Amino acid sequence: MQFQTLVSDSKSLSGNIGVLFADDELIISAVIEILKQTNTHVTLYGIKDPTELIRSFNIDGDFLNRIHLRTYKEKEMVYHKCAADLKDSTINVLMKGNVSSAEILSFILQHKSFIDENNFLNHIACFEIPSYHKMLMISDVALNISPSIDDRIKMINNIERFSKNIGYSHLNIGLLSSVEKPTSKIPSSIDAVEISMHFSNDTFVNVEGPFAFDNAIDKESAIEKGIESEIAGDLDALIVPYLDVGNTLYKSLTYFAHAKVASLILGTTFPVILTSRADTKENKVNSAILALRTLL
Amino acid sequence: MQFQTLVSDSKSLSGNIGVLFADDELIISAVIEILKQTNTHVTLYGIKDPTELIRSFNIDGDFLNRIHLRTYKEKEMVYHKCAADLKDSTINVLMKGNVSSAEILSFILQHKSFIDENNFLNHIACFEIPSYHKMLMISDVALNISPSIDDRIKMINNIERFSKNIGYSHLNIGLLSSVEKPTSKIPSSIDAVEISMHFSNDTFVNVEGPFAFDNAIDKESAIEKGIESEIAGDLDALIVPYLDVGNTLYKSLTYFAHAKVASLILGTTFPVILTSRADTKENKVNSAILALRTLL
Repeated sequence: MQFQTLVSDSKSLSGNIGVLFADDELIISAVIEILKQTNTHVTLYGIKDPTELIRSFNIDGDFLNRIHLRTYKEKEMVYHKCAADLKDSTINVLMKGNVSSAEILSFILQHKSFIDENNFLNHIACFEIPSYHKMLMISDVALNISPSIDDRIKMINNIERFSKNIGYSHLNIGLLSSVEKPTSKIPSSIDAVEISMHFSNDTFVNVEGPFAFDNAIDKESAIEKGIESEIAGDLDALIVPYLDVGNTLYKSLTYFAHAKVASLILGTTFPVILTSRADTKENKVNSAILALRTLL
Repeated sequence: MQFQTLVSDSKSLSGNIGVLFADDELIISAVIEILKQTNTHVTLYGIKDPTELIRSFNIDGDFLNRIHLRTYKEKEMVYHKCAADLKDSTINVLMKGNVSSAEILSFILQHKSFIDENNFLNHIACFEIPSYHKMLMISDVALNISPSIDDRIKMINNIERFSKNIGYSHLNIGLLSSVEKPTSKIPSSIDAVEISMHFSNDTFVNVEGPFAFDNAIDKESAIEKGIESEIAGDLDALIVPYLDVGNTLYKSLTYFAHAKVASLILGTTFPVILTSRADTKENKVNSAILALRTLL
């Protein structure tokens, strides 16, 4: 699947995105762009009244009608009302505003009904990389520090469900290491063998590894190294062994390889947009479009 | 320093590069390019006679005169003669040909006199990244899997000596993690504090960390995150916590960010060029030029 396919034709996408603490110019400007590019409503939860900030953008009445304000005196009430609205589906997407990721995650984890039956949260980043021939999903670049083998199996379960939701009929998933042959000296390479075995009977996914990054994303380099794999160089998703790997890769792709990205938290009963302050407005908007697409 | 400065004006560089097992078209083509771009001699050690292969390139007599052949029947003799020539400085640079990195490393480690007094080997990759304002060295992307704190201190010692050799008068060194504030949950972030403290009295290097990759290479992102650091966004060298991080970063930069690279093994008493088969001819030649420059 192409990244561009996912984020185009977004006009008909609808839903109600709840934004926690939208008292920030960058967030409001992303919210307005989301309203322009989709047919969604947005509910802003917070303590500061964002009315003046919104009016400073001089937007049409039609867009204003799709913004709903929930302003309270206490942080506790903000979260309380947001949780209630998520429970009765008044809002069906959650978006992080001007607040730390840790605080949003702690809010989610406090509510059992917000976690799906796989009982595991992971972050997924969907990249459009100029030199790669299709969308590449990478996990985990933001949340799980040193996921166990079982954690990485659950990550793949989450990615399977997410991918089905957005229209994939099959997924090639690679397990990243620094070598392409398992060696006991490099734990990620050994783990890859065990993880891939777990999915040997799964027809939706083809999970293989270990791959070094070049063999994961370039078929020619895999052929040169004599790697026998149907999916080498043609991955839809890449599982990294540690956050240090994923986080560095995410940032090298966005800063130096001019990649576009849309990212979400998976494993929740509603999509969660957890972009960071450093993400561009375009990345925030694309993440929202991706979230709305999972509702279809 | 700029990468381009290092690899330009190479005509006057001289030395004698010993290539182990040069029986390969790509290696010979790199050797000929090295002869063209520098004033060096090259000695080819191997079992197969490469004369025909060399003649197929149709090169001038002047270049042929600077190629010396050491062909033996047994692998043992090849290594024996190469070691003797390194010991009496007949050759003063070692280059890997058509042989595994592990075999070359084992050859080096067998000879105590080949290891310098720091007693630690590491790989250094020197990048020219199109969107970065100067050369960025990264270690370790190829050799050390999970270096201890002490290992990473020795890596920095090796990088200091190497950088002085090629003309640096000061180095900004960053310690990579996935966060910019130390947290006990992420070992690389805690290690960074201890490693940087070790260099607090060193005037040649300014070692700081932890950095997430964006704060390491982009001053604006560091300012946005309120990071107080003189070197954030202005690094000359980056130390990664694991090989999985460095190897992935190396490949994402060369495959997706169109980076040029020159790489060497440090910690030996002579420079060692250990490029991989997947490296381009240009990267091999640049690595040789870098090696010759350390002899000045």
